[in-house]
Amino acid sequence: MDGTDDLTCDDFLGGRLRIWQPRKGYRAGVDPVLLGASIAAKPGQSVLELGCGVGVASLCLAARVPGVSVTGVEVQPHYADLARRNARENSAAFHVITADLRALPHEVRQQRFDHVIMNPPYFDRLAGTASDDGGRDIALGGGTPLTDWLDIGARRVGPKGYLTIIQRIARLPEVLSALEGRLGSIVVLPISGRERRAPELFLLRARQEGRAAFSLLSPLTMHAGERHTGDKDNYLPEINDILRNGAGLPIAP
Amino acid sequence: MDGTDDLTCDDFLGGRLRIWQPRKGYRAGVDPVLLGASIAAKPGQSVLELGCGVGVASLCLAARVPGVSVTGVEVQPHYADLARRNARENSAAFHVITADLRALPHEVRQQRFDHVIMNPPYFDRLAGTASDDGGRDIALGGGTPLTDWLDIGARRVGPKGYLTIIQRIARLPEVLSALEGRLGSIVVLPISGRERRAPELFLLRARQEGRAAFSLLSPLTMHAGERHTGDKDNYLPEINDILRNGAGLPIAP
Repeated sequence: MDGTDDLTCDDFLGGRLRIWQPRKGYRAGVDPVLLGASIAAKPGQSVLELGCGVGVASLCLAARVPGVSVTGVEVQPHYADLARRNARENSAAFHVITADLRALPHEVRQQRFDHVIMNPPYFDRLAGTASDDGGRDIALGGGTPLTDWLDIGARRVGPKGYLTIIQRIARLPEVLSALEGRLGSIVVLPISGRERRAPELFLLRARQEGRAAFSLLSPLTMHAGERHTGDKDNYLPEINDILRNGAGLPIAP
Repeated sequence: MDGTDDLTCDDFLGGRLRIWQPRKGYRAGVDPVLLGASIAAKPGQSVLELGCGVGVASLCLAARVPGVSVTGVEVQPHYADLARRNARENSAAFHVITADLRALPHEVRQQRFDHVIMNPPYFDRLAGTASDDGGRDIALGGGTPLTDWLDIGARRVGPKGYLTIIQRIARLPEVLSALEGRLGSIVVLPISGRERRAPELFLLRARQEGRAAFSLLSPLTMHAGERHTGDKDNYLPEINDILRNGAGLPIAP
């Protein structure tokens, strides 16, 4: 897996970012871009990404908000190495640590962050079947229970800081339950492929010491039209703006 | 509160139902009508409504699905009496029991139902301030914690039966948490006043022995246009069909 032949170098944010990632295995799509776009970080703030993979979410965030300091944790050394390479080649303030999130090194455990972000695996590996590629398996299937991600993430959020997660809709109850009594002011933005379709994903933001009532936003729709037509993505203009121009995605009522 | 002067007789479902309710205090709006419309009961099935008030949800359901047998439980004798009167005057198979849902009589506790439905108070009385009208207070503010409603409701759902609740969006996490490990196949339909506004209410349906993944539907929108204009309700045609013509409201992906 170490030869450049096994890698691709892909454009993100309309070419503002060039990201190396394995040709096979877990490949970043739009989800980490949406996650990065949704973080309302201010210059100078600190961000921790748990399970950063090759770094797409963190690098999108760093490209949009100058002066943020981003730390990524990734358990798979090959992905962590690519994340470091991507940080270097995109000149980003993105520091990557190879570690299991359940055994964070002292330098991370002693710090609390303005934002903790995560795009955990969408499926529970224990409930599914293994694929041929171990890396893809861990990235898609997850070796760490979702409640651990949220528990560990919540501990790293500083006073009045935010935790933001992107995840499959099916796991919303699990996520809410893991956050209960930990973080507040929860806002959920459902993400639908098409207008009036049931959302498949959600972005959720919660706040340390937050006391606002839970709120669910009107869904974000990705594509125009009723169905996929030919080769065109048909992204709606606001989505195109996020994916191609690096615009932010406010999570707000 | 017993003179007819203190009551109004209102049309529901375009006049198919005439409902007596107190002039002051808790007055049924569209929410119980939506609840009644959302129940996919079949003729001959049994339904239990917890906290039925003057009976709007149950009577709407009975008017739409002939041959259902509906039992209502209401703690406030004045509302329970009105529910019985409304059942009689609308010739509905709706049997009303005056009881606290935490102390259901034997005849209810020994039975399990195809559908359990509820429109519990939207606010927690302990967290709010009391109004002058005790009846309105109980109906709006609630003396029974929401988790008790769901716990008691879940126990009364028969094999493969359904529990359906309408409630404020702010309390979705509380409702999901109360159902965890009890009922499955949870489907949530958010209800928005206007297109692209954050939903204020939700209908949630859960199933006894249900094993399907949690799903969130595209929101149901009530009103056309961006804002309220003059005297007109401006209900969207499908909402008008539910409120005026007694149509059903499918909760389905």
